[in-house]
Amino acid sequence: MSKLFAIGIGPGDPDWIVPKATRAIQESSDLVGYGLYLDLLGDLGAGKARHVLPLGAETTRARLALDLAASGRTTALLSSGDIGIYAMASLLFEMLDRQLQGQENSPAWLDVELEVIPGISAMQAAASHAGALLGHDFCTISLSNLLTPWESIETRIHAAGCADFVVSFYNPVSKKRAWQLARARDILLSYRPAATPVVLGRQLGRDGQNLEITTLAQLSPRRVDMLTVVLVGNSESRQIRNGSRQWVYTPRGYSKILL
Amino acid sequence: MSKLFAIGIGPGDPDWIVPKATRAIQESSDLVGYGLYLDLLGDLGAGKARHVLPLGAETTRARLALDLAASGRTTALLSSGDIGIYAMASLLFEMLDRQLQGQENSPAWLDVELEVIPGISAMQAAASHAGALLGHDFCTISLSNLLTPWESIETRIHAAGCADFVVSFYNPVSKKRAWQLARARDILLSYRPAATPVVLGRQLGRDGQNLEITTLAQLSPRRVDMLTVVLVGNSESRQIRNGSRQWVYTPRGYSKILL
Repeated sequence: MSKLFAIGIGPGDPDWIVPKATRAIQESSDLVGYGLYLDLLGDLGAGKARHVLPLGAETTRARLALDLAASGRTTALLSSGDIGIYAMASLLFEMLDRQLQGQENSPAWLDVELEVIPGISAMQAAASHAGALLGHDFCTISLSNLLTPWESIETRIHAAGCADFVVSFYNPVSKKRAWQLARARDILLSYRPAATPVVLGRQLGRDGQNLEITTLAQLSPRRVDMLTVVLVGNSESRQIRNGSRQWVYTPRGYSKILL
Repeated sequence: MSKLFAIGIGPGDPDWIVPKATRAIQESSDLVGYGLYLDLLGDLGAGKARHVLPLGAETTRARLALDLAASGRTTALLSSGDIGIYAMASLLFEMLDRQLQGQENSPAWLDVELEVIPGISAMQAAASHAGALLGHDFCTISLSNLLTPWESIETRIHAAGCADFVVSFYNPVSKKRAWQLARARDILLSYRPAATPVVLGRQLGRDGQNLEITTLAQLSPRRVDMLTVVLVGNSESRQIRNGSRQWVYTPRGYSKILL
């Protein structure tokens, strides 16, 4: 049976790839992914056919991965972070769904054995580097309005604000758009304090990694790029300083009755 | 300098532990955790001092880990899943915070070098086993009202419903409480279709693992226990069947303009 692995490789460093994913990559003859992610694999990716497609060619990449697997080649489709979170796994199932509905002409896709292997997502890398900001109820919101109307995104930011969720913003800005993050900040500022801790995690686990702790009021889109994840604490989140070290965390609940 | 690692070991199987965590465990002389989690380590935990405290003794466990590290022993505090998500990392920082505020009498804690290493959380294990249900904006809500008033939890469920987030429920039931999950289901049913896909993931990555795909209307607390994570799709989530295989996924956005 033909096999397709959909694998999240985590933040970047092979030190963050689960052994299950490492073994699946070793078993694969063909790797499909954005060039940067394949480069991050280092030796693990050596000697395999590489199918590199540019960022933005997601649909083509999903089809290619299914086609390669359907042709009998054990294939790994790779993304950074968790491939099930704002990444390629959804698109694979969208493609299968379309085939099952007769909207594609690739019946061989249905014979592919699919396995999804999760990875450490950017929010987890950022939260753990900075402390424990995801310690209580949280939500994730993509600020890309390429596929989701901005009104829906704004509804979610308001919901996060009024229900006091910790929020992780994925795709916070792009080369073409920066106003969304400023708008998201302003919405959250109407619900929680200006001093609410914010974590900016950029390229964590890769060369050039950077972690910045700031506040909601001081969150500027100019300090954020496409490779940054933005975490905003809830109204209970706290920043502490121990000597030169800063940490941010969210307590487990509201009434600390067990202490 | 004394060292304390706070480590999430993922769902259970060592196959899901990131190499960074494995190395930290190897470097540690002392392991602190709930007995089950230490047992899951197998050979990796052999030959180390084990400090086992029962479930519920979280505060004692955090103090013990800090005390051991402060005494010069390289210590690993372990939890399943991601230690930063509904787990012990927050509590460590609460303890440090209390010490910094003079509410504890353990100044040596402030000399401990702390490192938090994330792991694959239960929602990621469940979503990946079942497809890609976390493919778009989602939130996590703990249904334990031990530390959070039920009114706050209910506010969050309503927010998740009206903003159409995919929802992962942690701590869905306990031996003492089951009504919360039924109430959560009923609230979400006021916002999204009865046929909304639901995933029940129990003990994934461990002996006795079980994955069930059902619908929101059919979600029964009787099929859920303390070791289960409950994932509820949003209004766009879909279930597909390919032969005997069922999958559930959430599409990337609302307008599939790129296909």
